[in-house]
Amino acid sequence: MSARPTSHDVARAAGVSQPTVSRALRGDARVAPVTRERVLAVAEALGYVPSDRGRSLSTRRTGRIGVVVEDLGNPFYLELLDVLHDRLEREHARMIVVAPGLRDPERVEYLADGSIDGVVLTTTLLDSPLPAQLLRHGLPFVLLNRVVDDVEGDSCSLDNRAGAAAVATAMLDYGHRDIGAIFGPATTSTGRDREAGFREALAERGAHLDANLTRHGRFSFDDGHASMLELLDGNRRPSAVFCANDVIALGALNAALGRGVAVPGELSLVGFDDIAMTSWEAFRLTTVRQDIRRMGRTAIDLLLARMEDPSRPPQRVVLPAALVHRATLARVGR
Amino acid sequence: MSARPTSHDVARAAGVSQPTVSRALRGDARVAPVTRERVLAVAEALGYVPSDRGRSLSTRRTGRIGVVVEDLGNPFYLELLDVLHDRLEREHARMIVVAPGLRDPERVEYLADGSIDGVVLTTTLLDSPLPAQLLRHGLPFVLLNRVVDDVEGDSCSLDNRAGAAAVATAMLDYGHRDIGAIFGPATTSTGRDREAGFREALAERGAHLDANLTRHGRFSFDDGHASMLELLDGNRRPSAVFCANDVIALGALNAALGRGVAVPGELSLVGFDDIAMTSWEAFRLTTVRQDIRRMGRTAIDLLLARMEDPSRPPQRVVLPAALVHRATLARVGR
Repeated sequence: MSARPTSHDVARAAGVSQPTVSRALRGDARVAPVTRERVLAVAEALGYVPSDRGRSLSTRRTGRIGVVVEDLGNPFYLELLDVLHDRLEREHARMIVVAPGLRDPERVEYLADGSIDGVVLTTTLLDSPLPAQLLRHGLPFVLLNRVVDDVEGDSCSLDNRAGAAAVATAMLDYGHRDIGAIFGPATTSTGRDREAGFREALAERGAHLDANLTRHGRFSFDDGHASMLELLDGNRRPSAVFCANDVIALGALNAALGRGVAVPGELSLVGFDDIAMTSWEAFRLTTVRQDIRRMGRTAIDLLLARMEDPSRPPQRVVLPAALVHRATLARVGR
Repeated sequence: MSARPTSHDVARAAGVSQPTVSRALRGDARVAPVTRERVLAVAEALGYVPSDRGRSLSTRRTGRIGVVVEDLGNPFYLELLDVLHDRLEREHARMIVVAPGLRDPERVEYLADGSIDGVVLTTTLLDSPLPAQLLRHGLPFVLLNRVVDDVEGDSCSLDNRAGAAAVATAMLDYGHRDIGAIFGPATTSTGRDREAGFREALAERGAHLDANLTRHGRFSFDDGHASMLELLDGNRRPSAVFCANDVIALGALNAALGRGVAVPGELSLVGFDDIAMTSWEAFRLTTVRQDIRRMGRTAIDLLLARMEDPSRPPQRVVLPAALVHRATLARVGR
């Protein structure tokens, strides 16, 4: 056997013909599942790596696209899933939602097991090994929403820095100087970049962000709620608070309501994402809009293009953000 | 080798221990995926047929359980997914969310294609052919939340009639006579049974439900919102409105807020489900609690028991409902 095994080596060891190996690897329905499993087992045992051409052919074999999302509690991801589902349906592909858990983080073996043709990663941590592993396994993927820094892959994300900077600028323009923030996890690109954009825009205008008026937490209602209570109980109350996403902002807003603090009369609040709920009459939250439909469509287009042509250069698409003025950001001391 | 190969023969040929063969065949997470594939390939190559006991174990060959949910926009299903995910993780099984779309309704071929070991159906319509088809395909399933009437299968649902009846009784006890309702789709067991329970309880007390004060719609915020605007614009306004689920109730509540109608001062509102959001300070919605954790756990237990013993008699578990008093149901004319 040569140093690099061929599909003929796999065929011989598995006791099937070479065309059967090819069919099995691309998931052709004519190959019985058990035969396919045997071929995959042998291919794996021999360390067989399909050629580039073979890999591109083998990409649309199951008709299923996996979407990895860890935070099903955040409506943002549901709206995104809805868009992805719609777009995939038009492509006659089926969406499979893979929801890894805390005790069972996503492992590449679960994705690159032949059950899906490609993966959309939506909640990737900055230090996740998964994108690099998927590259090595030759399973097409696209990073959506959250990105990582050092991987040669396709991605579609929002200009989170610019969005957060627009919030800082609007707060300053409205006369706020006691500015606070409830930031998200620094382990995510969205958390990190929204914080950086907010801080930079304040610094550019010579404004100071008092560490006593900032908190960090998960992108969750509960953390937004608890952080806001801390800020309200502090020695110096902020007049405006930037929340790193809408779910945090809704927690903060409800905490303020519970304490009888008038929003925006006594406290301005701005979120990020523009999930549907923010426009409800009970909230009318000022927030940063991301075009979820466009993001989802773009990600699927990138993934399908990657599946067609594994050798195309990676693309990093960054979409614009826009501040949506509703009722929770007002001029200071109004 | 004997005419009928044993698990020991498989172990020998695959170069692993017999316990490893057993573990691999039942999808135990302690066996590495590649080892499992090798064992399965060898078992197939030898024509190994597990004993009856073994066959029931071999129904867990993929380690994946599918959860079919159509309405990802309803937080109720997210809370349910969370519980199911948790419970499956404890069983070393992985949850795959299958979200059928309008243009692409769930087809049995998509589920019974060997990619999953069992199915949890959460949003089944009363006339869905899917449960009967799954029975014929021999793919274990459980109906959760929404049930169908004529299928020999396991199910776990809430006592929706009793829950809705408790709402009717509380409204009457609080002196309401101008009672309205925004019901859900009659094509679902939850929509049908909540409507029936509400109507029956009113009738038992001799109370009349004016057709002008009732609406039907999807289980959606938008339909709740639009229906409430219609009721508010009618000739005769209800003093209390029962909403067939919390998402409808939140739509109705926000519509009332937008019109400046005080809840519960001018209008009492009651929902159904007790999703987390209903306890937010902005809402404090009185609603009917279902124990989502217990429902999810029960459904998974039923499914696993069915996978172990396909011949056991079907069980229909109905869990109790309880009215949760918060701030949106008050004495009439308070």
